Amino acid sequence: MTAKKYSIGVDYGTNSVRAVVADLADGRIVGEHAFHYPSGEAGILVDSRDPNLARQNPADYLRGVLVSVKKAVTAAKKADADFSPENVVGMGVDTTGSTPIPVDEKGTALALHDEFRDHPAANAWLWKDHTATAEAQEITDWAKKRPENFVAKCGGTYSSEWYWAKILHCVRTAPKVAQAAASWVELDDFIPGYLTGNTAPDRIPRSICSAGHKALYNEQWGGLPSIEALGELDPRLCRYRYQTKAVPVDHVAGTLRPEIAKKMGLPAGIPVAVGGMDCHLGAIGCGIKPGTLVKAMGTSTCDIMVSPLSDPLADIPGLCGIVPESVLPGMYGLEAGQSAVGDIFNWFVKYLTPAEFSRGDAHRNLTDAAAALAPGASGLLALDWNNGNRTVLVDQNLTGLLLGQTIHTTAPEVYRALVEATAFGALTIINRFEEYGVRVKEVINCGGIAEKNDFVMQVYADVCNRPMKVSRCPQTCALGAAIAGAVAGKGYKNFSAAIRKMTGVKEKVYRPRPAAVKIYARLFGLYAQLHDAFGCTDKTSSLHNVMKELLEIRRQMR
Amino acid sequence: MTAKKYSIGVDYGTNSVRAVVADLADGRIVGEHAFHYPSGEAGILVDSRDPNLARQNPADYLRGVLVSVKKAVTAAKKADADFSPENVVGMGVDTTGSTPIPVDEKGTALALHDEFRDHPAANAWLWKDHTATAEAQEITDWAKKRPENFVAKCGGTYSSEWYWAKILHCVRTAPKVAQAAASWVELDDFIPGYLTGNTAPDRIPRSICSAGHKALYNEQWGGLPSIEALGELDPRLCRYRYQTKAVPVDHVAGTLRPEIAKKMGLPAGIPVAVGGMDCHLGAIGCGIKPGTLVKAMGTSTCDIMVSPLSDPLADIPGLCGIVPESVLPGMYGLEAGQSAVGDIFNWFVKYLTPAEFSRGDAHRNLTDAAAALAPGASGLLALDWNNGNRTVLVDQNLTGLLLGQTIHTTAPEVYRALVEATAFGALTIINRFEEYGVRVKEVINCGGIAEKNDFVMQVYADVCNRPMKVSRCPQTCALGAAIAGAVAGKGYKNFSAAIRKMTGVKEKVYRPRPAAVKIYARLFGLYAQLHDAFGCTDKTSSLHNVMKELLEIRRQMR
Repeated sequence: MTAKKYSIGVDYGTNSVRAVVADLADGRIVGEHAFHYPSGEAGILVDSRDPNLARQNPADYLRGVLVSVKKAVTAAKKADADFSPENVVGMGVDTTGSTPIPVDEKGTALALHDEFRDHPAANAWLWKDHTATAEAQEITDWAKKRPENFVAKCGGTYSSEWYWAKILHCVRTAPKVAQAAASWVELDDFIPGYLTGNTAPDRIPRSICSAGHKALYNEQWGGLPSIEALGELDPRLCRYRYQTKAVPVDHVAGTLRPEIAKKMGLPAGIPVAVGGMDCHLGAIGCGIKPGTLVKAMGTSTCDIMVSPLSDPLADIPGLCGIVPESVLPGMYGLEAGQSAVGDIFNWFVKYLTPAEFSRGDAHRNLTDAAAALAPGASGLLALDWNNGNRTVLVDQNLTGLLLGQTIHTTAPEVYRALVEATAFGALTIINRFEEYGVRVKEVINCGGIAEKNDFVMQVYADVCNRPMKVSRCPQTCALGAAIAGAVAGKGYKNFSAAIRKMTGVKEKVYRPRPAAVKIYARLFGLYAQLHDAFGCTDKTSSLHNVMKELLEIRRQMR
Repeated sequence: MTAKKYSIGVDYGTNSVRAVVADLADGRIVGEHAFHYPSGEAGILVDSRDPNLARQNPADYLRGVLVSVKKAVTAAKKADADFSPENVVGMGVDTTGSTPIPVDEKGTALALHDEFRDHPAANAWLWKDHTATAEAQEITDWAKKRPENFVAKCGGTYSSEWYWAKILHCVRTAPKVAQAAASWVELDDFIPGYLTGNTAPDRIPRSICSAGHKALYNEQWGGLPSIEALGELDPRLCRYRYQTKAVPVDHVAGTLRPEIAKKMGLPAGIPVAVGGMDCHLGAIGCGIKPGTLVKAMGTSTCDIMVSPLSDPLADIPGLCGIVPESVLPGMYGLEAGQSAVGDIFNWFVKYLTPAEFSRGDAHRNLTDAAAALAPGASGLLALDWNNGNRTVLVDQNLTGLLLGQTIHTTAPEVYRALVEATAFGALTIINRFEEYGVRVKEVINCGGIAEKNDFVMQVYADVCNRPMKVSRCPQTCALGAAIAGAVAGKGYKNFSAAIRKMTGVKEKVYRPRPAAVKIYARLFGLYAQLHDAFGCTDKTSSLHNVMKELLEIRRQMR
């Protein structure tokens, strides 16, 4: 009888890092531990004068991986008699992104030097840092004028959350840090580099996942934008153009350094996979394959599909990114998403829920009352754009809309309309995939909402007229990282074999109910009318200006 | 030195009747008393099986006028040494409407007979009774097919709140009552009839105010719709067609009967003016004249103007009513209105206000927080159609809309947007008057909101770019009735003389603030876009169907 095999997945979230130990046979998590970043507010360095600023201390990341892996290993020993550190075949890492970190010529984060410790710009620029809005606009304008049209593959608009916008903002506002930085390394590269000792900026493996989605990396134009192109944007960016070829998660970043392995209670030399962004490895943890849409449903959603590189694939307008091998080797990764889902429900609970429903668990109270209503019975219809629209309109300058209220409309009715609006938004994404030839044969959901809210999942099944499955493992990102570790460690010969064995869905599947499907088809027709009237990107609708002018007035009056 | 003169105004509201004693010199109220109707719930007979039913006991009306006048007279004696019952020159009455009452051949309300006491249909059909929705639709269809186009002067749509709809519903659903009824008398005719003993259905003076607005009375087609026309609708209506010529409030209904005068502590023989509806006499109490728009601002609004009969006047599309002499003799009365104003604010407080703002006086809390915001700073825009749109769209099948919300939008921001929406609706009415040649030179407001809410009035001034004045006397309807009494008693030779002396506005005038005016002009442009897109009556907008289809789906699903 051969010994059982295990792999380790490390998942860097916004507030904590979680390590899991997964059984290669079935993906079962046999040990896990979450480490909460000690710095700042819930791990985030903020600035009371600038609500857009969100940074993180790289020291938290380093200590976090040591502590979380060590404790997960200890937990696995306790929980599973078959487990032994010797049986760990590999390790994988996923992180938030774009979270670039300025590093010195050795690849050490600047913030780890005393000189820069307290400089916000020298720390990690967390994905949700929005200080670079102006630079993002500048990059969009530049990219569109360039012959390469760098933003065509990422929805036509560069985001303030992404790599070059943040670096450009640093160059402009913190030149001392920019000058000290030899390079900028994404968190999903920084950690594998740290674990393997492979940190030098010109050698550290760069993940195609973050490079392709966030840094405008594409082999069509020879990797990153050329020196000439970057120079046109700002000559000070040129020195950050690395030559490395970005690679997918089936590549090995290196092996676990002895001094780190020791601190983790693991043998040295374990292969560490190239990293990836959380949603992409989460899709792997959910069991992604061609035809499967994986929806990570939280405050926002990330919707991911894959399509074989060998199949013809159109540029699908409105997708956030189409990047070869960003999710799985040999396949295009297709990323879409909704800018706010849970955030819309949270907004309603925080700002507009009366005492009657806010005692105790407001979401539960509203959900129970909303679930008791019939589809269409409120007469309400909403647009799910309270935080803009990521897919398919790619327009942050859109806002929410609620229509149909009377003088008797209740809070649960509005809550239900908001849930339905996000489901209509989800269906709009599915339709866009299919209109461009990417068949959605299956939907697997993961994330907090999919785990916790039957009502929301049932509405999604009814609105999308498709069964909604939920990932068996709630830690899909960490499991995806563990799968990458399993492949890196040759526990499986490839991802599809590992995914087949290590992932699955829960027994409970939300199935569309024919009566509700019929009503929602009518409501979706009306949603589509509002969507096209207000979201219209070509100004053919007479209302295309309304939301934008309101935002312009708001900007002037604030 | 001549003795001072006084008149009495009696104002029948929804829950109580109020009598006032007014000084003819300046309109000062020297005594008043409110009598709350004892029957039903707060004076309204309801039916737990039918939320549309709202009736009143005519006995409450009769006892109410005796008690309230007597106590107002007693109070006046106490408060004003110059006052004496001998110095009362006349009495006037205003009431809710359309509030028709089935009466026997002597003019006695059927409900005052033992046989009918407990029959809901034999009582007064309060204005807000909505049992006759189907009949109202039937009447609209009929009226539009008729060569006279009976509804052209009342906005193109007959309402379930009005005279013939209620009678037709009674004919269909309570034939015993309908057969016993010799006629149907509006409350504003019923009370002067009772006070003067002039009650016989074929002789009782009928007010042009209620007849013209609610009973399709127009001298163009010879008074009420002809027997032939009514017969086409339902032959059983023909017997209710009275021949009386309806008259304005400068006519005298008769003199106070001795037995009633005695109970009131007044001399017999005091002239009693023909009655009118509350808003119309309220406009008089506010000091209406050509060029003055009077806005009664409560749960809904009633907007009234007058225009000399000698001036050319177009049919103004979307007005609820254009009726010769309905407000003042010698002038057209023009009635417009918003279906919900205070009701929208009340809805928000009741259903969507979080605990933070609902402790104590929620309106006050929200108002204070909303007043601290700058116009346009929330990015929100709303339509004020939560209860349909009375003017200028005349469409009950419209609903509310809120647009521009983000994941940070607060309750006071929404509250402010709702207040602004009602102001935009008010401006839409003003613009409609002016587009058709009726200049609005002055706006005088009255009612609870005008009395109590500085913030709302300031928003109206800024949005409408016009000073907002507030009636000096808070009891404008009762004062208007007293003015009618003063004219009936020859205390003044005509209404304009009486109005000049007896009405006025408060010293505090809300003046438009130029900076806010500028922003609101931009926001109103966007409001108008939404108004025309969703309210479009000719189906030229691609969104004309949205609210209506939602209501249709709602109807099916409830």
